[in-house]
Amino acid sequence: MARCDHTEAEVIEPREEEDLEAASRSSSVPEPQSPSPGADSQSSHRLLAYSDALISIIATVMILPVAHTPMKNNEELRQSLQLLLSTKIAVYLMTFLIVTMAWAAHIRLFQVIVRIDDYLALFNLVCMMLITFLPYTFSLMAAFPEHVLGVLLFCGCVMVIGLIQTVIVLYGFSQPHLLHPELQSSPHHAQYQHHILRVILRVPLMCLLASLAAAICFQLSYALLAIVIFLPYISSSLQWLRSKVLGPVEESPDELLLYSFLPHEPLSKERLEAFSDGVYAIVATLLILDICEDNVPDPALVSERFNGSLVSALRSYGPQYLAYFGSFATVGLLWFVHHSLFLHVTRVTRLMGLLNTFSLAFVGGLPLAYQLTQEFPPGSQNLLEAIQISCVIVFFAGLFQLCIWVAALFHSEECLRPGVRYGGGEHLLMLAKLSLYPAVALGSFLLTCALGQFSADIFHLMELTVPLAFLLLRLLLQLLLTVWRHLLSRLGPRPLAKGEEGEEGETLLCGPADT
Amino acid sequence: MARCDHTEAEVIEPREEEDLEAASRSSSVPEPQSPSPGADSQSSHRLLAYSDALISIIATVMILPVAHTPMKNNEELRQSLQLLLSTKIAVYLMTFLIVTMAWAAHIRLFQVIVRIDDYLALFNLVCMMLITFLPYTFSLMAAFPEHVLGVLLFCGCVMVIGLIQTVIVLYGFSQPHLLHPELQSSPHHAQYQHHILRVILRVPLMCLLASLAAAICFQLSYALLAIVIFLPYISSSLQWLRSKVLGPVEESPDELLLYSFLPHEPLSKERLEAFSDGVYAIVATLLILDICEDNVPDPALVSERFNGSLVSALRSYGPQYLAYFGSFATVGLLWFVHHSLFLHVTRVTRLMGLLNTFSLAFVGGLPLAYQLTQEFPPGSQNLLEAIQISCVIVFFAGLFQLCIWVAALFHSEECLRPGVRYGGGEHLLMLAKLSLYPAVALGSFLLTCALGQFSADIFHLMELTVPLAFLLLRLLLQLLLTVWRHLLSRLGPRPLAKGEEGEEGETLLCGPADT
Repeated sequence: MARCDHTEAEVIEPREEEDLEAASRSSSVPEPQSPSPGADSQSSHRLLAYSDALISIIATVMILPVAHTPMKNNEELRQSLQLLLSTKIAVYLMTFLIVTMAWAAHIRLFQVIVRIDDYLALFNLVCMMLITFLPYTFSLMAAFPEHVLGVLLFCGCVMVIGLIQTVIVLYGFSQPHLLHPELQSSPHHAQYQHHILRVILRVPLMCLLASLAAAICFQLSYALLAIVIFLPYISSSLQWLRSKVLGPVEESPDELLLYSFLPHEPLSKERLEAFSDGVYAIVATLLILDICEDNVPDPALVSERFNGSLVSALRSYGPQYLAYFGSFATVGLLWFVHHSLFLHVTRVTRLMGLLNTFSLAFVGGLPLAYQLTQEFPPGSQNLLEAIQISCVIVFFAGLFQLCIWVAALFHSEECLRPGVRYGGGEHLLMLAKLSLYPAVALGSFLLTCALGQFSADIFHLMELTVPLAFLLLRLLLQLLLTVWRHLLSRLGPRPLAKGEEGEEGETLLCGPADT
Repeated sequence: MARCDHTEAEVIEPREEEDLEAASRSSSVPEPQSPSPGADSQSSHRLLAYSDALISIIATVMILPVAHTPMKNNEELRQSLQLLLSTKIAVYLMTFLIVTMAWAAHIRLFQVIVRIDDYLALFNLVCMMLITFLPYTFSLMAAFPEHVLGVLLFCGCVMVIGLIQTVIVLYGFSQPHLLHPELQSSPHHAQYQHHILRVILRVPLMCLLASLAAAICFQLSYALLAIVIFLPYISSSLQWLRSKVLGPVEESPDELLLYSFLPHEPLSKERLEAFSDGVYAIVATLLILDICEDNVPDPALVSERFNGSLVSALRSYGPQYLAYFGSFATVGLLWFVHHSLFLHVTRVTRLMGLLNTFSLAFVGGLPLAYQLTQEFPPGSQNLLEAIQISCVIVFFAGLFQLCIWVAALFHSEECLRPGVRYGGGEHLLMLAKLSLYPAVALGSFLLTCALGQFSADIFHLMELTVPLAFLLLRLLLQLLLTVWRHLLSRLGPRPLAKGEEGEEGETLLCGPADT
């Protein structure tokens, strides 16, 4: 197995210096490209991809009960919304938060254990099975807040997950060839194992307390569970306080950084992208699930109510198709912005991960909001509010993406490629891409407030213009480049002669950044 | 951009010789690990991963209408099944087949165009939007087989997809830095573009014919569509016939292999894995979607019918939970076998891809079958049949995985790592893993036929034993290894002194294979 690790190291070396620097700084794991020939230890790449896919599906699934809440047309949307808001949306957000937390813990664990074998793969599957069951326990808690069963089930799941993770850690440390190369040769091996186990067992321990407290008073157990959610932040602020009061504590060994809860702790960029891809893909296709199931008219109904005319039967579903294409386009373009952004990101911090989670949580609500906009008759107060909610969701989904960029700019030396830092050639284009959706959503929101009865038209206009705006942005940039090149060639002799035409403009713009 | 490709080539070189050989033989694209610093051309990795996620969701979605078909307990399952089989299962299988075909075409296209820019990303999103709409057109066709609208919609979608793909090809060839490195320097550039366009435009052309034929006679249009599905096979067998009759035709340039329809044509292994992961992940979580939505009891109902006892209310849902965990475990373990298998595969042929599609199509039916097994009262004929159907589905899902391996063994020099070829040390373990599910399913099926009234118990036993069997297999192997090592050390001096204990046994087994 040592042979294989050696090969990996060789594979990494000839990369661009910048990449290597970023990789070593973020202590991200060099992903083995080729599984080792023996089956005893395997690249963990595919196991992690599968886990990412499972977790992203589960995180977004809880929007479905929200979307399928029966809403009557004659009822005011505000009332339905209050019902929705009170339980189902809370369950959705809570699930999303907890499941992404479990996912972050999973990342952290498999940043330490970088290779797997059959046992670890099977343990991981059991872990995933329990994680996918968590949303159901939330549904129970939401439906029966005063009954302890939901809390107990949740705590039971978390405790079993904690136990399995403990087994995984113990097994991983007993087979050193599975560990991160830095750890294999580390003298702090035992200390490190102890540290990880302490961090992992903290959560199940709190859950044990919460389930014991549930026997006395269920409010107390909810309070304890809330502490579990904010545990990382509480512990890091406690550490910060202690360092202020007692002076700085002795530095922990460097490799402990792989498994900490600091806000600048690195997260695996590859897995963050895989998770986001999963969420965007599920969300983009959520509406087609409903359409395929509900919007195929019954043959008997067609011949009865529409005189056998299938076209006019389908016309009554028109708004649903519009909603599907609208939400697919919006989610697709938000994915596109996310993709463009992360092309420029070299290192993901915990804070950026958190902002990404918030952005994804709003994206998850998008199909629901779009569906609402198509359900009410034009001119009604309901429609106006549904459209405003859609605008708000798009606005926040885009805004948090912008925040990721701002957070990266604060550590631009470590987190961003040179081209998009302040003064970089791609900076403006990236800013334009990121601010397009928040700006358009804010504009539409304000317009719908001012011109209430045209709200549907404004909304459709927004749906149509945004995809075109992305193409226009690119074209505009190319036009500017051509003008700029033309001006340069007029003003003096060509300053650069790099050979390839077409790429020259880019080179000019990127020039200062590449040096 | 040339700089980046150069770097990639350097990254690939130091890999194990075997890998490189396989890579060059299969002409698979060396995946760029680092996006280029300019935004003008980007690694296509994430775009393809997102497309894989979208397509795998869409392929499996059509099992949901099947699962949600209302079935009454007092009705014989056989009748419901005939209703199901006649339309919805046909729609599911047809969707799965067509969507995986679209996916294969997508792979083929982006094996030629290996880098993307913003325009291509947006074009691809439009393409995906239309592909995700295809299942709905099938639903329409199934519900209204004699109405031309479904056929017209389907043909319309396919024609637009074909047009967009044409635009992508034309754009890609106008920007040579986006193409596969082999093509960039190829003298057959124009000829190659012509070849690809001809292959791509064949399908929309057939659809145009089919939609014209729909105006005359709808049966004719279905026949034409059926031809579309088998077009690759028809065209390759026609070519084969021509070569037999007219003698071998002149060889096409080597790089045409990247875009052909031959059965030994290489498919991107990475994308096949990503697609399979997506399908397994969706299928594993399909039942939790329903559970979260339907199996949270109504508070009013609980206090009314169960005297406020939540536990007894939930107990009535017990079978659904069992079904969920059973189907998750089965799908998870089938994924595990798939994962183990593809660790040993170095190159995927078109035939293996096809077998994989069949296996996945059966996996997609699994949650439905498991749900059925929990819906009927014990001892009824319905239950017996539901369990038998589950066994049949598991059997075929496993069998087609075994077929992938057999297909790989036929070209083991090119497709498999040395360790699992005939005589390789891992050969037996892999065979055991692959044949476990088909054997257990077949055994259960025969047992349920013989002992009708114990069928439910047999089924639960199967659910419980299979996960344990995987662990037992591993333990058994380790035991055998220990015995083997012990015998060797008794018989003579240690033949090998490789240092690490524990891995030694593996080395012994893998020894002959590694050389």
